[in-house]
Amino acid sequence: MTSKSKPVIGITTGDPKGIGPEVVSKALSDPEIQSLAQFKIYGPAVSDFQLPDIHSAQTAISSLEAALSDALNKKIDALVTAPVNKARLRLVDKNFVGHTEFFASRVNATVCMMFVAKNLRVSLVTRHLPLSQVASRLNAVEILQTIRLTYEGLQQYFHILSPYLAVAGLNPHAGEGGMLGDEETRIIHPALVQARKEGIHVDGPISPDTLFWEASQSKWDGVIAMYHDQGLIPVKTLAFKEAVQITLGLPFLRVSVDHGTAENIVGTGRADATNLKAAIRLACRLKN
Amino acid sequence: MTSKSKPVIGITTGDPKGIGPEVVSKALSDPEIQSLAQFKIYGPAVSDFQLPDIHSAQTAISSLEAALSDALNKKIDALVTAPVNKARLRLVDKNFVGHTEFFASRVNATVCMMFVAKNLRVSLVTRHLPLSQVASRLNAVEILQTIRLTYEGLQQYFHILSPYLAVAGLNPHAGEGGMLGDEETRIIHPALVQARKEGIHVDGPISPDTLFWEASQSKWDGVIAMYHDQGLIPVKTLAFKEAVQITLGLPFLRVSVDHGTAENIVGTGRADATNLKAAIRLACRLKN
Repeated sequence: MTSKSKPVIGITTGDPKGIGPEVVSKALSDPEIQSLAQFKIYGPAVSDFQLPDIHSAQTAISSLEAALSDALNKKIDALVTAPVNKARLRLVDKNFVGHTEFFASRVNATVCMMFVAKNLRVSLVTRHLPLSQVASRLNAVEILQTIRLTYEGLQQYFHILSPYLAVAGLNPHAGEGGMLGDEETRIIHPALVQARKEGIHVDGPISPDTLFWEASQSKWDGVIAMYHDQGLIPVKTLAFKEAVQITLGLPFLRVSVDHGTAENIVGTGRADATNLKAAIRLACRLKN
Repeated sequence: MTSKSKPVIGITTGDPKGIGPEVVSKALSDPEIQSLAQFKIYGPAVSDFQLPDIHSAQTAISSLEAALSDALNKKIDALVTAPVNKARLRLVDKNFVGHTEFFASRVNATVCMMFVAKNLRVSLVTRHLPLSQVASRLNAVEILQTIRLTYEGLQQYFHILSPYLAVAGLNPHAGEGGMLGDEETRIIHPALVQARKEGIHVDGPISPDTLFWEASQSKWDGVIAMYHDQGLIPVKTLAFKEAVQITLGLPFLRVSVDHGTAENIVGTGRADATNLKAAIRLACRLKN
């Protein structure tokens, strides 16, 4: 018998002025991580906080382009991304909102972010919005898209034949019968009706403050959150260093760390590779 | 030596059509609970889902009036409240919003809700509002009031000499330098400046999705959350059955269960007294 061949995991080291290169080097020096895969690295191996901003941004963007090309050409089995400074990358690509939107626009895909930590798999309907805009931007079409992408992602990557999903309400107590908001009946409910017509087993809208405890007990295979902090607060509260992110809807598997460039500690040797290691482990486990 | 005398804990059994009377009876049949205090019970000892609505509401309100009178006259050392159905109580008292507001209006006090679970003590600036109204209703005066009440409550009940507080941002990443909302600089920051002038040691505004993990590691003595689910999601996710509530700002200690009347299971014997027991234990520990 030959041993099963190892996956090839691509890793972008991110913004060189951030901790990305440093945490990638630390992760890859861990024998446990080395044993999991072959690695292809995009970007410099060493962080450099003195690099001019525009060169740092150009380096980060070039790494993303190269990694995207390899992912689309199946030269890597999954892509793991270290952090970039979004404001800095806009110096080079004025439309840069984040990795997720960068990849989505290049392959013209509808995507969603799913956060994974312990027993929680949480997808977001809206992403980086001021809280004041969440209610007015919420719509049934994007809720339904997120339900579908989550359902398909759990089948494709987690190999769950018929995923069982939970959808959070927007308001306290999921609106308490209309006393605390009507988005549950007006926007979320119609999306659930359509999802069920499509054969998706989905509960909701559920009171946000009780949903995540039940989800952490594995009641559902995946959860749909209406806004960033509704999903991120429970994920990070339960598993701060282990929480990582998957982009669902791309033609390849992309896993991301869930931290920023932490530029205040670049060069001090204090950057922690725990989260990147969690991302690498998940990529190896879920690879196509 | 004589043994230290036991506190007198008042308990309202809540709405008789709900599980309140049932969970009170269950809690008081537990020898550990019996050993903690003397108890004075307000309201019927048995739940009755067939009682007419208006009688149930009248009974619940009368119990609250009697308990309030005893609390103000120091006949009890603390008050623990079982749940009521707010909509039903409005049949008798059309202004009834909740226990917290009921007591606050009777004693003309400015109050805040603090939720307690494991290492978390979380106060809310806004309470039961649709999410769409949170940003527009937020103001520096109420944030400052909540900071002060939390500071004083931690001194008075938890005997922390100089409480160290954390204040959450409203927006993802606490606004990310204004990219994701300006309430942090426009509303929250001025309240923090004033609190610090008053000698209160307080950090913030902090990214909501990282704050609660750090708080669960006991970084701060108390946390100020801007809206219901921002505070309740982490509290209930970490400690679903143990999370209880204190009203700060009243002239007596009031502790509440953090669940509703669960009328669908009244009479089935399935009501769980775990949360009420947690409320009783906390009341005994924090009594004036």
